[in-house]
Amino acid sequence: MINKELVKKLSLQLKKDGVSALFVAPSGDLQFLVGHSPHLCERFQALLVTDEGELCYICNALTMYEAKDFMEGNPVYAWYDHTAFTDTVKIAMEKYGLIGKKIAFNGTVRAFNLIRMMNTIDFEPVNGKDYLELTRIIKTPEELENLRKASLIVDKVFEDIIKFIKPGLTERDVKNEIARLCKVYGGDNCTGGIVAVDANAANPHYFGDSAVIGEHAVVEMDYGCTVGGMYSDITRTVFVGKATEREKELYNIVLQANLAGEAAAVNGAYVPDIDAAARKVITDAGYGPNFLHRLGHGIGYAGHEAPYIHGDYHLNLAPGMAFSCEPGLYIKDDIGIRIEDVVIINEKGETEVLNKCTKELIEIL
Amino acid sequence: MINKELVKKLSLQLKKDGVSALFVAPSGDLQFLVGHSPHLCERFQALLVTDEGELCYICNALTMYEAKDFMEGNPVYAWYDHTAFTDTVKIAMEKYGLIGKKIAFNGTVRAFNLIRMMNTIDFEPVNGKDYLELTRIIKTPEELENLRKASLIVDKVFEDIIKFIKPGLTERDVKNEIARLCKVYGGDNCTGGIVAVDANAANPHYFGDSAVIGEHAVVEMDYGCTVGGMYSDITRTVFVGKATEREKELYNIVLQANLAGEAAAVNGAYVPDIDAAARKVITDAGYGPNFLHRLGHGIGYAGHEAPYIHGDYHLNLAPGMAFSCEPGLYIKDDIGIRIEDVVIINEKGETEVLNKCTKELIEIL
Repeated sequence: MINKELVKKLSLQLKKDGVSALFVAPSGDLQFLVGHSPHLCERFQALLVTDEGELCYICNALTMYEAKDFMEGNPVYAWYDHTAFTDTVKIAMEKYGLIGKKIAFNGTVRAFNLIRMMNTIDFEPVNGKDYLELTRIIKTPEELENLRKASLIVDKVFEDIIKFIKPGLTERDVKNEIARLCKVYGGDNCTGGIVAVDANAANPHYFGDSAVIGEHAVVEMDYGCTVGGMYSDITRTVFVGKATEREKELYNIVLQANLAGEAAAVNGAYVPDIDAAARKVITDAGYGPNFLHRLGHGIGYAGHEAPYIHGDYHLNLAPGMAFSCEPGLYIKDDIGIRIEDVVIINEKGETEVLNKCTKELIEIL
Repeated sequence: MINKELVKKLSLQLKKDGVSALFVAPSGDLQFLVGHSPHLCERFQALLVTDEGELCYICNALTMYEAKDFMEGNPVYAWYDHTAFTDTVKIAMEKYGLIGKKIAFNGTVRAFNLIRMMNTIDFEPVNGKDYLELTRIIKTPEELENLRKASLIVDKVFEDIIKFIKPGLTERDVKNEIARLCKVYGGDNCTGGIVAVDANAANPHYFGDSAVIGEHAVVEMDYGCTVGGMYSDITRTVFVGKATEREKELYNIVLQANLAGEAAAVNGAYVPDIDAAARKVITDAGYGPNFLHRLGHGIGYAGHEAPYIHGDYHLNLAPGMAFSCEPGLYIKDDIGIRIEDVVIINEKGETEVLNKCTKELIEIL
């Protein structure tokens, strides 16, 4: 269903910024606005929201019936495969008086389609990635409750998966079992996430799945699911066999960084200070250059959304915000360790770490 | 491994077109060029190929180790989460003398990242979606052989799945079984594709999965897998219970259109004529407006790539080309029927329909 309250909020923000309209291609953003997000292929499609709160959808005939359903009587402008989509976009833009104006684009519109539009239609493109993320940066009590439920599921999965892991299994085996367990415990969108063994974990976004767990191994698992559309996201790194002294030392550095980040994440805290608190632990231990990414990202209807927790995100935490705290230490061709929880500032302004499952070093013997 | 032959071919084409460089974000394109394609999130990352054949990769530190591996000693420019990626892109573009020049972008670069680049760097953006697709429009004998193998797998899956389908199963059940069977027969990238029951199939890109197959049902299945990176793609529509006279009539129209398209798809044929041959059958039967999409798309390292088979794609078929022939008939809130095969023009210039499993109307009783 179209979220009329949100459309109004968004159109007021557009007007305030002097932006005449926003294109929203299929994404968590679109899901949030109209309650549905069609499959996105190479063909251009997007919702158009004007600063007057008008709505229309532009898509290929392929998606026309689907769009008519979720657009609830608002216009759908369809183009056919043998015509140029830009002609149809132009007709819609003329209809709403958008020619020559500032037009924003959300995060999922493709560059080549924007270029085709710029070649044939007169307008000034603006980065609109953050518009919808910012309208949902403060979660409602119901959304916070769904975040708690989603986190509870991945906690339960963790308790089970550490009994499942053993030498001889592949990363894929563990990933499939995580996906299965997430579903069993009631989660949606259970992909199994990232499972990275030993040096594979040195790549924070490793997406392979064929390595085998040896008699002595480091197993990093980063996974999540959704409840009511809200995501969970957890990372735990466990050891198969006895951890070496060096592994224990590295693990403890990451754990202390995780705890320092969570301790700094209080209501009103300045986001760069939170990143800095965790980063200091790793830097002081001599591994600063091996903490390759930001401390965390907001979470909600998208797995990654505002607020982003790093040194150049200038914002103070407020009740209703939800984000990950996930320091990591990555040494190429050697090892990767990450520990991640989802944290919220709740309705009372208290910090709640939603993941309750242990972060103590686990050795699977 | 970096495909040096292709880099050379691409750089010559760029030079010929007066385009100084091409950005290639993670995609089938990138896989084809460097043998690997990292996970793409909201952070900008892309290979830069200049018209002199120089290569570098620009990415977040997160992907830095991974990029160093596949870039085989070519420069990797990494930016950190707390810095602006555009500063790093600018440094790389200055290094290769690309400021103020025409720069192309492949199909997977995101518009908001392009806008951020346009706001801070002087260059002229060009639609580069087709560059890599056109360099691989003629398949090698080995690639054609992998296309045949991939099609053989989905044919076998079809033989099995018609024994599996019965009333009471959900679309999801059928999809999971298709994915499982594709793997069993040796396919990679087995997602289960689209399974759409009854009126759900009126949306050609339906991606739901919860509807239940009734005692009398129409079940449309559109799925594929890869072998050696090459995709297969098949659609069959079957009936559960006895098909009605009207259903038989509609099915036969689509079947005749499929056969007419395949008959027209001979070496040297002009692409718009192929689309027209199939479309005429459906139009003559009075359902022209219900054939919502192009007749087909090329297929290879991507599920959809050049040549696109529709009335505005001005090209003649040549040996080595591979594409789908997939007419469909879609009536909102009622029914959808599509029949799809992959077709190649082989090394001898003969038309080969790669899918051999039956297209006769099937009733599962």
